[in-house]
Amino acid sequence: MSSSAAFPLDLADWISHQLAAVEQALDQWVSVDASAHLEHQAPVELMAAMRYAVLDGGKRLRPLLVMAAFEAVQSGLLSQVVNASEEAVTVPGALEQATGPYQAALRSACAVELIHAYSLVHDDMPCMDNDVLRRGKPTVHVQFGQASALLAGDALQALAFELLTPDDASLPAAQQAQLCRLLARAAGCTGMAGGQAIDLASVGLRLTESQLQEMHRLKTGALLKASVMMGAACGHTGAATWCALQEFGAAIGLAFQVVDDVLDVTADSATLGKTAGKDANSDKPTYVSLMGLDEARAFAQNLKTQALQALQRSGLADVRALQGLAEMVVDRTY
Amino acid sequence: MSSSAAFPLDLADWISHQLAAVEQALDQWVSVDASAHLEHQAPVELMAAMRYAVLDGGKRLRPLLVMAAFEAVQSGLLSQVVNASEEAVTVPGALEQATGPYQAALRSACAVELIHAYSLVHDDMPCMDNDVLRRGKPTVHVQFGQASALLAGDALQALAFELLTPDDASLPAAQQAQLCRLLARAAGCTGMAGGQAIDLASVGLRLTESQLQEMHRLKTGALLKASVMMGAACGHTGAATWCALQEFGAAIGLAFQVVDDVLDVTADSATLGKTAGKDANSDKPTYVSLMGLDEARAFAQNLKTQALQALQRSGLADVRALQGLAEMVVDRTY
Repeated sequence: MSSSAAFPLDLADWISHQLAAVEQALDQWVSVDASAHLEHQAPVELMAAMRYAVLDGGKRLRPLLVMAAFEAVQSGLLSQVVNASEEAVTVPGALEQATGPYQAALRSACAVELIHAYSLVHDDMPCMDNDVLRRGKPTVHVQFGQASALLAGDALQALAFELLTPDDASLPAAQQAQLCRLLARAAGCTGMAGGQAIDLASVGLRLTESQLQEMHRLKTGALLKASVMMGAACGHTGAATWCALQEFGAAIGLAFQVVDDVLDVTADSATLGKTAGKDANSDKPTYVSLMGLDEARAFAQNLKTQALQALQRSGLADVRALQGLAEMVVDRTY
Repeated sequence: MSSSAAFPLDLADWISHQLAAVEQALDQWVSVDASAHLEHQAPVELMAAMRYAVLDGGKRLRPLLVMAAFEAVQSGLLSQVVNASEEAVTVPGALEQATGPYQAALRSACAVELIHAYSLVHDDMPCMDNDVLRRGKPTVHVQFGQASALLAGDALQALAFELLTPDDASLPAAQQAQLCRLLARAAGCTGMAGGQAIDLASVGLRLTESQLQEMHRLKTGALLKASVMMGAACGHTGAATWCALQEFGAAIGLAFQVVDDVLDVTADSATLGKTAGKDANSDKPTYVSLMGLDEARAFAQNLKTQALQALQRSGLADVRALQGLAEMVVDRTY
């Protein structure tokens, strides 16, 4: 095989390259300056809380999944690459990164992160998890007050959809509509918010594995899967590739939560950057409480295998970043 | 003038006709059944809180503005109608209502109402206005608890964008993108959420008229104006008509708030269906506290005149519903 996919990817290098772009874009788009061309500007107090919630922290797993899926679909199908010249799968250069599809992926990456960030802000509030520490810093409502935290979360959700609908013709309308659709479904009552509602209703209850799975497929899985699909939607994919990436996203999304449950009982707060043992102590159902620690670990490995097999079925020429992220999600220690 | 616009519109009749369609659509779209075709369904507990927040209450001013603006742009330009046959401005029949543009307007009407409804749910929470009564019923957090109210509001915002991005090809992608853009900007930090943040920061302060105006243009004005523009976006408009409708929407949006401030001191709680005198008592700056009761009333009338003049400049053949709503907004007593 002559494609670049044959060479191992330096994942740490790839991540640091992608994060530089994502952090810069977030810094630019979550700012008062971003509304300078509009009729009204965002109030500075509100923007301060929004920036606090979004910038300078977070592993950015969702944006990384967006960018990795985008790169994978941009690499084309392996069947085509084998018959084509090697140039077809070279890493995009600076010029290519300035063009439409890359910009669409970067906007998608940031939009998904804004939804994730708003959910954390609202989750941490006293009426929900009542958390005072997040990523080693005081949570938004501790720093800015509850009312500002509520509004900042609300505004971050709206901003996510603003990022996906620029009026400068940099994104084709069809892509804008599809990206909004994917994100809205993943964020709303049939996605993240729905999963949180099940979570809320299930404290103290003994869920079956399938109930627990449905909760997590919605609560964290939907947005992680949407990250993969939004990245894919920024390029061109056939139906078979699309389906394979959906399977990949679903497996990774669930694996993420299983590993979270494992780490909740095995890691300490300092390593996690948040309060450890919280779910177990608050009598929330987890994969560990349901199936025990060893079996939960095995389940996570099993999901990783499913994810990697789906990648193979995708037929895409270069899935190295997606593969690396899948391994990172499952084998992480924090 | 031979167009149907020459005949007076029975506004109550028009409103009742439109409301029937809007209420039915909200009942259908804010339901567990609406997600029956998706991979995951909305949890019933969450949906119950969402439906409670949206259905069976509210004047539906925003949806009415969407439908009125849509009808106005569908009526075409007066200059064309005078030269064309009278049929061009007849009221749409059942068949026409089933087609794309009408469906787009109905989806927009409901989407705007969902954003409005979510903002009320979050506004009423203890950390914000701490209101226990809304439209004569216990507020959502009183009925379902704070955590559910928070989630229901979050999910309603996402659902608004889902409504605007159906995947059944009933709405052209370009329209979906434009509608999402208009709504996201009106809801977010440069719109409604931004205005609420200014409101929050201004308690106890003495604002100038221009500061108060900026707050209200964002807090309530942005979504009311967006209602008009989203209705217009569901049809075809030239630049001049678009600008005139923007002026109309801005004037009506501000007038609504001025009248609200007037009613806050002149009406009683039973008539308003919410706690009267609340803004004045909580030391929030209002148009009445700033300019006095008589001058605030005169300002509202002045804004109505501006709105009606903008309608004339729009050149649209049939602006009767928009005109009727403008008069209703300013001359209402509750």
